[in-house]
Amino acid sequence: MTEAGDRRIHGLHAVHTVIQRRPHSILRAFLLDRPGGRLAEIGAELRRLGVEIEYMSRAELDRRAAGGSHQGVVIEVRPASEFSVREFETLVLARARALRLLVLDQVEDPRNLGACLRTADAAGVDAVVVPRAHSAKLTAAALKAATGGAETVPVCSAPNLARTLAWLQQAGVWVVGTDSEARQSVFSTKLEPPIALVLGGEGKGLRRLTRETCDELVAIPMRGAVESLNVSVAAGIVLFELLRQSPP
Amino acid sequence: MTEAGDRRIHGLHAVHTVIQRRPHSILRAFLLDRPGGRLAEIGAELRRLGVEIEYMSRAELDRRAAGGSHQGVVIEVRPASEFSVREFETLVLARARALRLLVLDQVEDPRNLGACLRTADAAGVDAVVVPRAHSAKLTAAALKAATGGAETVPVCSAPNLARTLAWLQQAGVWVVGTDSEARQSVFSTKLEPPIALVLGGEGKGLRRLTRETCDELVAIPMRGAVESLNVSVAAGIVLFELLRQSPP
Repeated sequence: MTEAGDRRIHGLHAVHTVIQRRPHSILRAFLLDRPGGRLAEIGAELRRLGVEIEYMSRAELDRRAAGGSHQGVVIEVRPASEFSVREFETLVLARARALRLLVLDQVEDPRNLGACLRTADAAGVDAVVVPRAHSAKLTAAALKAATGGAETVPVCSAPNLARTLAWLQQAGVWVVGTDSEARQSVFSTKLEPPIALVLGGEGKGLRRLTRETCDELVAIPMRGAVESLNVSVAAGIVLFELLRQSPP
Repeated sequence: MTEAGDRRIHGLHAVHTVIQRRPHSILRAFLLDRPGGRLAEIGAELRRLGVEIEYMSRAELDRRAAGGSHQGVVIEVRPASEFSVREFETLVLARARALRLLVLDQVEDPRNLGACLRTADAAGVDAVVVPRAHSAKLTAAALKAATGGAETVPVCSAPNLARTLAWLQQAGVWVVGTDSEARQSVFSTKLEPPIALVLGGEGKGLRRLTRETCDELVAIPMRGAVESLNVSVAAGIVLFELLRQSPP
């Protein structure tokens, strides 16, 4: 994929998601000539946001979408660079009772961070929180593994993760950590927004202070010989269990 | 990890799992001097299998387990090389109504295959089936990503995947494919053994013949802008949903 391709998003559902979640990241839009139906609604939403729209033929859109199924719309977005703590707090308060967060404590492999962003995007997560120290950065390897997820899910680097979790608790967010030693299974735990799901990285698990700050600790029941799951797989299991229990 | 370390498994639960699932892969065992309780039972099971047992001190076991929490037992296993179709069919018939299979259609990246094996092991899968052509092999990269999962979950390369799926159906196994276009959500589908869960690789999805052979097609509901999940993440979501609905 080209640099530009990395920053393009297409398709009705995907574009609608970006309009809802990161409207200010949209740089410009390419729309099918004479749009109708759902496509016309998307066009109206984009115009309301003040986004510059270029109208073009289906063939031209095919090229912009690099052959993907664009359904008449392609947008260019600014990559979700690190959110400041203030931007993050604004998002948390705006999402209110619908908030879904993923917190990654000490995920140090950029590919794992990227895979988690891809999974978080697919599960409708509003933002990912990492500690400023002890975390992989949004390097090219991370962005590649995210396959676009880094463009839609903002990442906030918290200078002090335990303090950010405590702030979330004050804001009414339920903070649930996954810990292989926990007695309670994630599948017998009630999960509903506003919620922050906290995972540890690469076999190290959660740091003591992170674990102690959580409101609740849950385990993914392990039925084999390996001792842990890859963090993006674990993220997929808990985030989709949240979706199963509490669809948006 | 050393070559030998890759082939060692420790801990009561993990060793018990290997005894149940792949007894003939156990080359030898290291047991704590004067074992009692659950450990003595494991020792008796290993002796019944004719496994050579070496008794040693806790400090010596610590070394064999490379510092892992061995609980008094470490075993060395033969890596699960490719199961022949005959060995696979024997396993399917032996597991009978408890059977859980993962089928990977065209997963061509060895790291993804390894990550799927790790996830499959964690979810108590009996075997993984791949097509002989169009599949990654159990290379060093795959074994590394499997973090031990390749030693406990056998992989069968099917010369003709559709024919193997048809044989499984004849044997009473329910064959469920995941397909992003399916109308039914995996979360609203009854999943119970004997079952084979079929996933496609790296954004390509299932081949037409594979898809048409499945008894049922289900989708993982996507809530973001990315179009697909990493195959090991998708495997984790469907395999753990099976476990949630039908614990062993």
